[in-house]
Amino acid sequence: MKTQISLNRINDAVNFKATNSKGQSMLMDGSASLGGINNGVSPMEALLMALAGCSAIDVVMILNKMKQKIDDLKIDVTADVKKVDDYKEYSHIHMRFHLKGEIKEAKLQKAIEMSIEKYCSVAKTLEKTSEISFEYTLNNEN
Amino acid sequence: MKTQISLNRINDAVNFKATNSKGQSMLMDGSASLGGINNGVSPMEALLMALAGCSAIDVVMILNKMKQKIDDLKIDVTADVKKVDDYKEYSHIHMRFHLKGEIKEAKLQKAIEMSIEKYCSVAKTLEKTSEISFEYTLNNEN
Repeated sequence: MKTQISLNRINDAVNFKATNSKGQSMLMDGSASLGGINNGVSPMEALLMALAGCSAIDVVMILNKMKQKIDDLKIDVTADVKKVDDYKEYSHIHMRFHLKGEIKEAKLQKAIEMSIEKYCSVAKTLEKTSEISFEYTLNNEN
Repeated sequence: MKTQISLNRINDAVNFKATNSKGQSMLMDGSASLGGINNGVSPMEALLMALAGCSAIDVVMILNKMKQKIDDLKIDVTADVKKVDDYKEYSHIHMRFHLKGEIKEAKLQKAIEMSIEKYCSVAKTLEKTSEISFEYTLNNEN
């Protein structure tokens, strides 16, 4: 199986539009580090977004299978950036899951663990570079 | 230094909006694998977009420093998906750079190599999982 995307420059600065095979796109730029205009996410932010999206999909699917009712899901991701030679990497990524609904806490914990440790392809890729940790709130309670 | 993003569920299916600290966002979903509606990029596609964006920024900056004039830049990325246990990974990622402008070929080759081997943080992260290769065209010629 193959996955394909394309990226096009959209102006004279470092602004780009990335598009998948179905035409869905995202805007990306590197202006944050250049002091220029900034109308897209940075590539390193996109890595964290990929992780959150991947894990969110898993958690929703696993909780659905467990017959739990999700009213809301939010994930905040914070990552520590470390300079290595001429590039940067995330030394540590912390994910805060915030769920609302008729969900048993033990099942939520299990669903998140299964995603991060077993199913989430993005987590399995990023864990080679970054320690990944998580916490959660359920109906606004820790 | 820290990087932060948030992800919110936007409907009852697995559709999500991820937002950075400046409010720029992308839509992501996992419906491609679920046969549902599909209005965003998949998390694994987002990894490839991050790679293309990262490398595009580098190549533009390096070529600018080398006083080369870029009229257009496009990158097509194709990745081989390999199933490992319960998740997937990219065994190989191939990037095709298409540039137009007053650019010396040796400088283009050098700029791409410097990005992928040295500067691009996303490439340095993904290379732990995936072999990354590239080719390029310059003014529509190989």
